[in-house]
Amino acid sequence: MASYTAPLREIEFVLKDVLDVGQLSRLPALAEATPDTLVGLIGEAAKLVQERVAPLNARGDQQGCKWHDGEVTVPDGMPEVYKLYWESGWVGLCNPTEYGGQGLPYTLSKVVDELVCSANVAFALYPGLTMGCFEAIAANASDELKNTYLPKLGTGEWTGTMCMTEPQAGSDLASVKTRATPNGDGSYSLEGGKIFITSGEHTMAENIIHFTLARLPDAPPGIKGLSTFVVPKFLVKPDGSIGERNQVRCVSIEHKMGIHGSCTCSMQFEGAKGWMVGAPNTGIQNMFVMMNLARILVGLQGLGQCELATQNAIAYAKERKQGKAFNGGEAIVDHPDVRRMLLTMKATTEGARVLAYETAMHVDIAHHHPDAAAREEAQDWVELGTPLVKAYCTDSAFELGSLAIQVYGGHGFIREHGIEQIVRDSKILCLYEGTNGIQAMDLVRRKLMLNGGRLPQRFFAKVRSEGTGDAPLGFIAKPLREAVDELEETTHWLQQSYKTSPDDAGFGAVDFLRAFALTYLGFNWLRMAKAAAASGDDTFRRSKLTTAQFFAGRMLPQVHSLCANVRSPAAELMKLEAAAL
Amino acid sequence: MASYTAPLREIEFVLKDVLDVGQLSRLPALAEATPDTLVGLIGEAAKLVQERVAPLNARGDQQGCKWHDGEVTVPDGMPEVYKLYWESGWVGLCNPTEYGGQGLPYTLSKVVDELVCSANVAFALYPGLTMGCFEAIAANASDELKNTYLPKLGTGEWTGTMCMTEPQAGSDLASVKTRATPNGDGSYSLEGGKIFITSGEHTMAENIIHFTLARLPDAPPGIKGLSTFVVPKFLVKPDGSIGERNQVRCVSIEHKMGIHGSCTCSMQFEGAKGWMVGAPNTGIQNMFVMMNLARILVGLQGLGQCELATQNAIAYAKERKQGKAFNGGEAIVDHPDVRRMLLTMKATTEGARVLAYETAMHVDIAHHHPDAAAREEAQDWVELGTPLVKAYCTDSAFELGSLAIQVYGGHGFIREHGIEQIVRDSKILCLYEGTNGIQAMDLVRRKLMLNGGRLPQRFFAKVRSEGTGDAPLGFIAKPLREAVDELEETTHWLQQSYKTSPDDAGFGAVDFLRAFALTYLGFNWLRMAKAAAASGDDTFRRSKLTTAQFFAGRMLPQVHSLCANVRSPAAELMKLEAAAL
Repeated sequence: MASYTAPLREIEFVLKDVLDVGQLSRLPALAEATPDTLVGLIGEAAKLVQERVAPLNARGDQQGCKWHDGEVTVPDGMPEVYKLYWESGWVGLCNPTEYGGQGLPYTLSKVVDELVCSANVAFALYPGLTMGCFEAIAANASDELKNTYLPKLGTGEWTGTMCMTEPQAGSDLASVKTRATPNGDGSYSLEGGKIFITSGEHTMAENIIHFTLARLPDAPPGIKGLSTFVVPKFLVKPDGSIGERNQVRCVSIEHKMGIHGSCTCSMQFEGAKGWMVGAPNTGIQNMFVMMNLARILVGLQGLGQCELATQNAIAYAKERKQGKAFNGGEAIVDHPDVRRMLLTMKATTEGARVLAYETAMHVDIAHHHPDAAAREEAQDWVELGTPLVKAYCTDSAFELGSLAIQVYGGHGFIREHGIEQIVRDSKILCLYEGTNGIQAMDLVRRKLMLNGGRLPQRFFAKVRSEGTGDAPLGFIAKPLREAVDELEETTHWLQQSYKTSPDDAGFGAVDFLRAFALTYLGFNWLRMAKAAAASGDDTFRRSKLTTAQFFAGRMLPQVHSLCANVRSPAAELMKLEAAAL
Repeated sequence: MASYTAPLREIEFVLKDVLDVGQLSRLPALAEATPDTLVGLIGEAAKLVQERVAPLNARGDQQGCKWHDGEVTVPDGMPEVYKLYWESGWVGLCNPTEYGGQGLPYTLSKVVDELVCSANVAFALYPGLTMGCFEAIAANASDELKNTYLPKLGTGEWTGTMCMTEPQAGSDLASVKTRATPNGDGSYSLEGGKIFITSGEHTMAENIIHFTLARLPDAPPGIKGLSTFVVPKFLVKPDGSIGERNQVRCVSIEHKMGIHGSCTCSMQFEGAKGWMVGAPNTGIQNMFVMMNLARILVGLQGLGQCELATQNAIAYAKERKQGKAFNGGEAIVDHPDVRRMLLTMKATTEGARVLAYETAMHVDIAHHHPDAAAREEAQDWVELGTPLVKAYCTDSAFELGSLAIQVYGGHGFIREHGIEQIVRDSKILCLYEGTNGIQAMDLVRRKLMLNGGRLPQRFFAKVRSEGTGDAPLGFIAKPLREAVDELEETTHWLQQSYKTSPDDAGFGAVDFLRAFALTYLGFNWLRMAKAAAASGDDTFRRSKLTTAQFFAGRMLPQVHSLCANVRSPAAELMKLEAAAL
């Protein structure tokens, strides 16, 4: 079984020494969230996660969820731990206090998400989707709807879902067919089928709230004719208590590659009663309000799985003896190819953590900074960082899971070691909330173009302002400068060519996103190296500097070949008719 | 469920137009194996594989193998199909006629292996290990042992295993502990436990022959004290009929990430009777006789899974409608990022096929060519090609499985589509018969050094002799020349630095193998482009040239950054003590 110990030292280093998390408590709204308070709470979360959540991971994978006659049973132990989890306040950590939350920073809730997602990513989806549903209602709904649903969603006492996908409408939500007909009393009657609904049915919570995309009878076709509705599993009486069962049913659950502990439901709406959230035909905008946050969360799921893969592979490599290394070492950690894999994992996970946490901090700043310009700038960073966090952290989770298996050798293929589960659990992260190809298109089509292209310029300027081209950090500062120059040139090429030859940009989008993420990680490793160089802990310092050196020498230079691919024209490749493939 | 149609047209193109398979029938020993005979037999195999083997794939994955009290039950349908398969002569295709085989080219048997491994890689392991056992006995055993075991192993009526791994002895066979004590009558008594024994127990065959690595009582320690033994499940009477049950038992089977239809057994030898194969303490040499062939076979397993991923992804992308592409196309095949994934899959699979088939043809030439120098040269190509085929085709299978899931989107994560099974089935291919890291070390430590380094020189000279730097094939000939130059320079660097700084070479080995394989594929794509340019089929020609262009522009240039990594010193990275990781 994979083991998990929260990397508290590393988290504290990133928050305090690299990202100056103290800037959050300098915001009036978050004054209580001092660095030490945050670190203390993370330590508390770590205990619960290690002791209660992690032990359910392998069992949940083996048992899976069971469907019988519309009811779904989750794996043993999960209901008890979910109850403990929400009652302890972890679901509502960053929600407003008026809706049952703790009013703490979003950043803190993302750090806790990382821990939970290392320990048990299937479990994490129950609170995760609840948060998505909460955020969507909080951003768009009337006060009456908010008061009805948010207090219990905000704590996690009720759970939530996002009902978007239909068989013909995955990436293309314009094709959504579910209908919502006005009942004349302010409510609507929903008809249609949804698939891939995470947490769509279970009995861990007294109610489940479905945030649902549907179409009004007179709606225009396509993406501009979608509206959003709140559809509870049980209707809620005026006094807030549970009323009659609504006509929304789980008709089946999926058998999946991984995340077996999370139920993925097909839901049938058969005259289900719902209430519109936001204005008619603004469904897509309403969904997008929470889309950034949902995507950042998925990125944290990826980061959690990266950490799980990395720490288990390192521990195994230190223990496992197999032949003698060139340097005389007896454990496989001293075999150079194993060392290469472990440094790849470490460089990726630790670098990605800075990316994810920094994006989360910008969410807090964008919400709470008293200065409008600072809020605007922070929101720019959130917009830019979101596709990077989502795609890079999740691609990395799958890749690092695969590397961890290689470190374990044949044993990695055996289920009892819990390592192959990382590969199986991680793959979905590259698919949902927009496939990673869609994240790349979001980066290239939207984020590079927004507000005259100022988002990437903010990034280039910030990286260049970090300086330190002189020894001893020149080993990373120099390749980072080269990477930024190449990335900027490629960015301008995309900004110019996008309108005239969208196929070129589309063809290069995934490589561009990866180049951007690697450059961002180069920036992170420069900052980590700088912070670690000042550390009095010799072992920690050398570990960080060695990993930075690995990243600078062997991962960061990939930016150049990726960018060359991006700038390579694709017209000829698109010209071949599909039938000839 | 994934579907499978054998790519007969592509196979015929590679054999006839790219590799001149006619050279095999110009060898006296293989005179009957004319190109048309081979193509005809491949067509026959395709029918059996498509109609009988492929339909068992999903069911085998779902049912898996069951262990009860020492007996193993394979999935429904497999015994009938295995019987049909060996009785039709497919197991013994290239075995000598005196041992029940058909005496046909090894190349043909590898093409058929590709088909079977696309359709059902778990099924393919039963004949696959039988062949490994056959080859090891054929190469090393006394005539008496050969006459006892080979006639029924050679047809597949009996199946075989390779009993090497023990819990403490995976990559490091020097640690094997199983003991073989002489009984005084020419037989030995074996005691010990083996793990990860593919096909170790089942009832599809009347007997199972275990080719077993063990240690004599007076054997020197380590790798030089190993001997090989044949240990039958049932003793064989002098008249060849089945005798009493031998004391070798399956004590459990593994629960694995994939290949559920293949049983992976823990075997206990408790005074099991065995007979020595070859001389005492020459076990490692005896194993290595069949090691190249076993590794090539695993490469073909990878190729088969590459083809399965590629053809299903292309078919799905042509059908699935999701939004409108920039070029107006309605199916996702016209979305540039999907097109990029499909071309990556196609370029990899088709290029890897040439690598695998060419290596197989060199095996035939090395066995059968009347001229000693030609045999020697062919054997050099086999030695060089083996780690490339094994590692590149299997890494690609896993990667292409993952890409296929991305093409399917969320549906790829659902088991019923059969796509995620490719990822799960493929991962073991990167691990067994030597992990892909070990393949890379074999390339760098042994193959680059053999006979004064002449193996890679043969490759560089052959590629350069292909010429065609002029238009219209300059688009690939030029980057290929640049890749060969870079690879040659890096090869010399490795050949020189290996003895003085083995850690550097070890650290870069995996990147070097990938660079070598990509260069080899560049050579293959140049030859395919040349052959296709002469084709009268316009669609086929354009498809090949477009894919060649994709490979030349976007995959082949990776050689440069990979080689830069290889030449980057690793001493600093190895210096960090393990505890600091």
